[in-house]
Amino acid sequence: MGLNSFQTSGNSPGNRRCRVGILGFGAVGSAVANWLLNDPPAGPALELTHICDRRARDKRARHERAEAAAPIWTDRFDDLLTSDIDILVEAIAEPAIDYVRAALLAGKSVVTANKQVIAQQASALLTLAERQGRQLRYEATVGGAMPIVRVLGEGLAGERVLKIDAILNGTSNDVLSRIEEFGCTAEEAVAEACARGYAELNPSTDLDGLDAAAKLSILCGLGFGVRVLPSQIETKTTAGVGAPEFREARLRGGTIRQIAHAEYDPAAGRIAAWVAPVFVPASSLFAQTKGPGNAAVIVTAHAGTVVLAGIGAGGEATASAVLGDVVAIARDRAAIVPAPTFIEPREITGLSDQTFAEAV
Amino acid sequence: MGLNSFQTSGNSPGNRRCRVGILGFGAVGSAVANWLLNDPPAGPALELTHICDRRARDKRARHERAEAAAPIWTDRFDDLLTSDIDILVEAIAEPAIDYVRAALLAGKSVVTANKQVIAQQASALLTLAERQGRQLRYEATVGGAMPIVRVLGEGLAGERVLKIDAILNGTSNDVLSRIEEFGCTAEEAVAEACARGYAELNPSTDLDGLDAAAKLSILCGLGFGVRVLPSQIETKTTAGVGAPEFREARLRGGTIRQIAHAEYDPAAGRIAAWVAPVFVPASSLFAQTKGPGNAAVIVTAHAGTVVLAGIGAGGEATASAVLGDVVAIARDRAAIVPAPTFIEPREITGLSDQTFAEAV
Repeated sequence: MGLNSFQTSGNSPGNRRCRVGILGFGAVGSAVANWLLNDPPAGPALELTHICDRRARDKRARHERAEAAAPIWTDRFDDLLTSDIDILVEAIAEPAIDYVRAALLAGKSVVTANKQVIAQQASALLTLAERQGRQLRYEATVGGAMPIVRVLGEGLAGERVLKIDAILNGTSNDVLSRIEEFGCTAEEAVAEACARGYAELNPSTDLDGLDAAAKLSILCGLGFGVRVLPSQIETKTTAGVGAPEFREARLRGGTIRQIAHAEYDPAAGRIAAWVAPVFVPASSLFAQTKGPGNAAVIVTAHAGTVVLAGIGAGGEATASAVLGDVVAIARDRAAIVPAPTFIEPREITGLSDQTFAEAV
Repeated sequence: MGLNSFQTSGNSPGNRRCRVGILGFGAVGSAVANWLLNDPPAGPALELTHICDRRARDKRARHERAEAAAPIWTDRFDDLLTSDIDILVEAIAEPAIDYVRAALLAGKSVVTANKQVIAQQASALLTLAERQGRQLRYEATVGGAMPIVRVLGEGLAGERVLKIDAILNGTSNDVLSRIEEFGCTAEEAVAEACARGYAELNPSTDLDGLDAAAKLSILCGLGFGVRVLPSQIETKTTAGVGAPEFREARLRGGTIRQIAHAEYDPAAGRIAAWVAPVFVPASSLFAQTKGPGNAAVIVTAHAGTVVLAGIGAGGEATASAVLGDVVAIARDRAAIVPAPTFIEPREITGLSDQTFAEAV
């Protein structure tokens, strides 16, 4: 294990290449790998040394390269733990908390794209990372290429965030904006989103709002310092929204989007949080967010409204967020990222009767 | 001097309060001070211990507070250098390079809102900061509350940025959108912007594009890793734009905004950079950016387009950016921020004949 040499190698980025291992060679993992091998970011020297995937043998055969510095392929996670990688990119679709914990315990920093890991266990895992003197970064868990984790957690760290409204699920936005544009059925829109790589064959967690709820839970921690579990966020499915609803919305001068909403009242300890399809005016940022786009409107106490938008689904957009985090760690491998202390809200409310009127 | 105790106090944010001194008690400095005293950010404990202003005596009389922990007022910069502050907030309007350098040499981290300092000397000052084991942060130099420095420098650090288009001057945007809305003269619009605190009495560096050029220069360093001095960026004044130009733009289906544009071709080593009033379509983000708003559209190689917007002028918006940086430093006072290495472009071009057609 190269852990001790890590400590003595210094922090200056020129000292030695920062070694990266990827766990999970799916859409995100393969995009990160291709990018590191063929178009590496400027700045600290990064080296992809390991790729771990359950089907490493098959996938390697399809991706083998002639380069001298080809990464080591393995199907054993332990090979990553005992390797000399500095950073683990965790990009598997299944539950991954044990992998993330094991990597931190083995002295690796971790970049994860896994929203459930962070939504469920951010506090415990970030505390572990801090104690280990390593970093756990998770920009890729929310918003795809839209850097909302960094904006809320760092850029607005001096602010009091009052309210967040956002489109956080690229798949359902692609489906909704496709029904809007073509008047097709939801089934046709889903099939098309699948064909374009923005949806799984069974996008129910996307349409039902569960994916956006997990992401909103992460944003509540970052923006308000409040712990809200995904299961505590009320969701209303968009699966029932079809061409007739869009016609009606158009008559009202707008359209329909799946919006994730959170608003915190610190004095009362009350947080309102929900994910639902709501009417949005045609002139709004949300109405103009089409295809797999994500967008967020963040209202702050001092500096007014901050707006963000970017592509929210697909391997490349997620890989972009992952690589930003990899570079951040490589720039200062000894950085200390203090774990947040989340407040438990006294009350969590969901959709109010005025939801439609309230919506952006 | 408390420098040695600083080094041994550890990095964990709970260990001791992070001491902050403010240089310059104008719109930004006073907003930062009020905020720290009355509504301090959550997270690391911050203590405002010193305020330095040339007219400290007068200003103190107007802002004296009864609190026990009232900061020390001084008109001598040396008092800050020899104090035990950890972070200097540099918020003076005049040239401040010497102050920033002296503070870094005295072992302070620095948060600056001074775009000229960074546009002219980013590389040298960031190298000095790294060598000193301190941080120099400058989110407040560009975009006000819109965290574009962090988004370009960190969030998109794994990306290849291809093009940046942005509204970077809140004053000229306020003036232009006021002429657009009310059909008033430029002089009336400037007077109104002054009255609302978004313009200086002589806003010529705003309207002429020099302010935006300095900010664009900073973004070229962050986004492309290329050094372009403000004086190398072609500017075209918006001072000549009045109601007739807006009528014409409206007939073409849009409006006029002061846009800062930069596009880099790494293969040719060629950068195009300019600031000018250009036609923008009514449906564009820029046309919808009104008052002192700032907005940016960043095109990347892998993750498509990332969009940002927020209030770009005024003490509170700038203070929000300053405090985000203060919190970032306080979270990890020993963090190492590697200084960037800028490339000198082989060719810098300005406005092309197709500017209007090219514009967003």
